[in-house]
Amino acid sequence: MSLELYTKISRHDCYGIMIDRGMLSRFPTLLASLDFNQHIIVITDATVNALYGNSLMNILSNSQCRLKADRLIIVPGEKSKSLENVTFLYKSLIDIGAARRSLIIALGGGVVLDIAGFVASTYMRGIPYVNVPTSLLAQCDASVGGKVGINHSLGKNLIGAFWNPKLVCIDTNVLTTLCPNEIQNGLGEIIKIGIIASPSLFNYVETHWREALNCDLNKLEFMIYDALEKKLALLDDDPYESNLRRALNFGHTFGHAIETLTSYSGINHGQAIAIGIALATEIASNRRICNTEVVSRIQSLLRSIFSEPPNVVINAENLWDTMNIIRMIRNNNFNFVLPTDLGQFVFTDDITLEELKKALKKLKVDGD
Amino acid sequence: MSLELYTKISRHDCYGIMIDRGMLSRFPTLLASLDFNQHIIVITDATVNALYGNSLMNILSNSQCRLKADRLIIVPGEKSKSLENVTFLYKSLIDIGAARRSLIIALGGGVVLDIAGFVASTYMRGIPYVNVPTSLLAQCDASVGGKVGINHSLGKNLIGAFWNPKLVCIDTNVLTTLCPNEIQNGLGEIIKIGIIASPSLFNYVETHWREALNCDLNKLEFMIYDALEKKLALLDDDPYESNLRRALNFGHTFGHAIETLTSYSGINHGQAIAIGIALATEIASNRRICNTEVVSRIQSLLRSIFSEPPNVVINAENLWDTMNIIRMIRNNNFNFVLPTDLGQFVFTDDITLEELKKALKKLKVDGD
Repeated sequence: MSLELYTKISRHDCYGIMIDRGMLSRFPTLLASLDFNQHIIVITDATVNALYGNSLMNILSNSQCRLKADRLIIVPGEKSKSLENVTFLYKSLIDIGAARRSLIIALGGGVVLDIAGFVASTYMRGIPYVNVPTSLLAQCDASVGGKVGINHSLGKNLIGAFWNPKLVCIDTNVLTTLCPNEIQNGLGEIIKIGIIASPSLFNYVETHWREALNCDLNKLEFMIYDALEKKLALLDDDPYESNLRRALNFGHTFGHAIETLTSYSGINHGQAIAIGIALATEIASNRRICNTEVVSRIQSLLRSIFSEPPNVVINAENLWDTMNIIRMIRNNNFNFVLPTDLGQFVFTDDITLEELKKALKKLKVDGD
Repeated sequence: MSLELYTKISRHDCYGIMIDRGMLSRFPTLLASLDFNQHIIVITDATVNALYGNSLMNILSNSQCRLKADRLIIVPGEKSKSLENVTFLYKSLIDIGAARRSLIIALGGGVVLDIAGFVASTYMRGIPYVNVPTSLLAQCDASVGGKVGINHSLGKNLIGAFWNPKLVCIDTNVLTTLCPNEIQNGLGEIIKIGIIASPSLFNYVETHWREALNCDLNKLEFMIYDALEKKLALLDDDPYESNLRRALNFGHTFGHAIETLTSYSGINHGQAIAIGIALATEIASNRRICNTEVVSRIQSLLRSIFSEPPNVVINAENLWDTMNIIRMIRNNNFNFVLPTDLGQFVFTDDITLEELKKALKKLKVDGD
């Protein structure tokens, strides 16, 4: 199944998203349409490098295009999204002679894509980059939309930019090397998109989550394509997240705070988002603003996929304090997204600590 | 003399440049038209803070607009344009609760504007900022155009972004507190614009440079307005410097390399640019591509204004090596700008070390 999507950045600019198995082997052909000086810098992490680094470097150096390719490798994990690593990458880029028209290829999951994109956005006032997402989460979400950034100890993604890739190359074959945890991780984001923007995608995940967890590529490709298509529809109307794009934060206000609170250990991004979605749905349910059948379908699907509870205890007061950084960023607005039905939601600011406590208790992640 | 200019960023976006004496006292009125959350963070350096910091903070806090204003102060000088200072500013912004719709005011010379603008471009994926340039150089050049950035030990402005201010507020009264060196500094950039884009501005500086050095505000305001107007004409056609905007680099390829080579000590930016202009003109003269009368007018005007030679010795080989970083950035092109007449120039790449040596010797900055 070869799929293509195009996203509009502005009236005059767009980039392509190519989805196919074995895409990596045809990479040089895809690059031929891009304007760069034939010097490529692959940024990846040690885990992904061990799996695909050498084969990508071989493909690039064996191509007819006389490409010069260098490779920079960072430590895997969310803690790598740091200013220290950005400094290391700037220095390395200068050392290997990366120029304004050199091309960065971000090969990896969300962490690699975020930091490599941020470095691309600020090196010599911005150079081009291509995303090659290797996790389900990055394929269905992070690789598209131009949000790049790094973390500050006080909060996630506090330093960043909007900087769009020139191309997104999604080789679904790489999903076969992911552990089931990683597939779970991505399904969290796919369910999120389903709830806020695509009842049919939600239905599809409900029907096919077992096959997805078993890495059935046909099912996963359908989910990736549909999730990206719905995300792009939101982006086209609002590239800089001033309005509807904020709906993509569904589950993330809680989720990011949980990640910050746990210092990104004991829980992965997908689990944090799943808890966030569950909390928002529980609060909507307690307020009686969400269709009860939908509430139970969401909770039940999350329980099926995330069958093992994450290895963290979430104290309501601590979570509340951590969320206040997010509230501050958003000009004293939480902009919580609460679902009201599949494909429908409201924004709200007035969630109380008591509502949060009650929801955490119900979900049994409060340690009691 | 109250002057206004507007610069187009895109089809839908522009910002105003206000030039007037005593502009600072009317600052809150100017801010009223901007979209922000009434939280202002003034970023300045210790020198400018001692002169204008308190009065600006008083003006802001006494305004009718119920503004909340904080102030962050950095050490003066080019060495402050560092990743360490950026890290300090990020941390401070988080500590004082700066949000996505908070407004940064960059109060100072080119260094403050460059680093504050860079922080604004990357804090929470970009927040709005206003430039209040206090040096002649920043008023006639750096405050406009959206080029923001910091230095790397290997080269000037290697880390940066294009991020436009929401407003540029030029209070020419502040020029009266500048030392003559600082006026010289700015005249270097004004002459640059005159040579590449405005014969009438060049004539005007030739006639009025003495009054300008004595801080005659009428003369300086004319020069600032004219330099900005010509710069904007170049920017409108080429905001991201892919083509004609590169002409603004006239004198800067040599100038930046001289600053890097001397680690920004013993020479200021204006002197470095003046040497750069003189070198480019000398090389054009030796190649017999520039009108000889124009060559002698340029050299003579530079000698008049920069009467004392800078306290540095420039070794041709070292300068050449340092320039290779710039060549690398520009994809193996130097993109040297050589004047051919007033208002006319050519781009060239094939300047040789021998030509550079000869020009340095003629200008007597080679230490022999």
